[in-house]
Amino acid sequence: MGVQKRLLLVSNSTLHGGGYLEHCQEQIKKFFGQQVKKVLFIPYALHDRDAYAHKARTKFESLGGGNTFRLLKTLYDNGLISEIRKRILQDGIPYMGSSAGTNVATVGINTTNDMPIVCPPSLKALGLVPFNINPHYLDPDVNSTHMGETREQRIIQYHEEPDTPPVLALREGSMLLVEDEKSSLLGLTGARLFLRGKTPIEYEPGTDLSFLLRMSLGS
Amino acid sequence: MGVQKRLLLVSNSTLHGGGYLEHCQEQIKKFFGQQVKKVLFIPYALHDRDAYAHKARTKFESLGGGNTFRLLKTLYDNGLISEIRKRILQDGIPYMGSSAGTNVATVGINTTNDMPIVCPPSLKALGLVPFNINPHYLDPDVNSTHMGETREQRIIQYHEEPDTPPVLALREGSMLLVEDEKSSLLGLTGARLFLRGKTPIEYEPGTDLSFLLRMSLGS
Repeated sequence: MGVQKRLLLVSNSTLHGGGYLEHCQEQIKKFFGQQVKKVLFIPYALHDRDAYAHKARTKFESLGGGNTFRLLKTLYDNGLISEIRKRILQDGIPYMGSSAGTNVATVGINTTNDMPIVCPPSLKALGLVPFNINPHYLDPDVNSTHMGETREQRIIQYHEEPDTPPVLALREGSMLLVEDEKSSLLGLTGARLFLRGKTPIEYEPGTDLSFLLRMSLGS
Repeated sequence: MGVQKRLLLVSNSTLHGGGYLEHCQEQIKKFFGQQVKKVLFIPYALHDRDAYAHKARTKFESLGGGNTFRLLKTLYDNGLISEIRKRILQDGIPYMGSSAGTNVATVGINTTNDMPIVCPPSLKALGLVPFNINPHYLDPDVNSTHMGETREQRIIQYHEEPDTPPVLALREGSMLLVEDEKSSLLGLTGARLFLRGKTPIEYEPGTDLSFLLRMSLGS
């Protein structure tokens, strides 16, 4: 068997009413399977890394959550971008992230919801898939009196810029599984795909999204 | 009379139930007064600048709103940061911004709510005041089932970083007036001040916030 690229990109670590990673624990078990004995946990997205790593070790929780800018900057500062890419794309090491960990797996972190609390040298991320993701996606709330832009408006603003890749908006409870040339939408809540200059498209859980892996910048 | 620094930093352009800049039109009139006949409008924060400038010219609306990253990057790209600073701090030209226009007036745009749709060379902004602002501030919603960080949690994450300035969180309907060494909170909804490592402090409309202008980085 040749080496396969394998990714599990989760929208959020905790779903309302459930425990840490409870909503995706079946998918995680299946994703890592019996043969995985060791997990490299990257705690860069939260300030107290020891506490975060301890939490993850004991409860296998919140994998990759935290602040996206902090996570990406620390990956750059430690020269880990190309090393992690190599381990995943050449050696077939499975990658799982949720929230910030999902953002850094994509083309760039341009569609994170986080505040830019630090400044990475670039917004370009690991590029394990040829599109961006917006985790924790929220549908517009017609009853809201708040005048800040909706998530949809923010993603459409992103696509006003030239050569911007597709954005897959994963609602909380949703996740994307990538196995080499195949990709499918898991979880319960579905996702919304934004393509530059096109009307967003809704996808139900279970949909085969392999075509997304063949998309190129600006498509 | 010597030259004074004069700033009006508004949280948001539109308040629910009102028209464009309606909630702050009295303050704007008073701020610019009779003697101001010309306004330089900076339309960089939205994609279609001609349409935006036209809108602003005809309705004097949405001054400085849009995407903060795009606004700051375009100011850098056009070499305008030091020129605008000079006009305001040395020549006493009044500056008014709302939302993105408020963010770029501060130390840095680290506490914007916008997506990083483009990458400015630095997050450092005009530095017209020695603190940052979070516009469109939202109090935590105890009934929300959404698991993304609250605005308060995001600002506290920012303050986990070293040497980070105070953050004044302006609710929609709130604005800050700066006249040289004096500053006061206007509008209807109040503000919340976050200092690194301290419990946030609530301020009512009308409060004298001149002490904020004397604060230094990390205080």
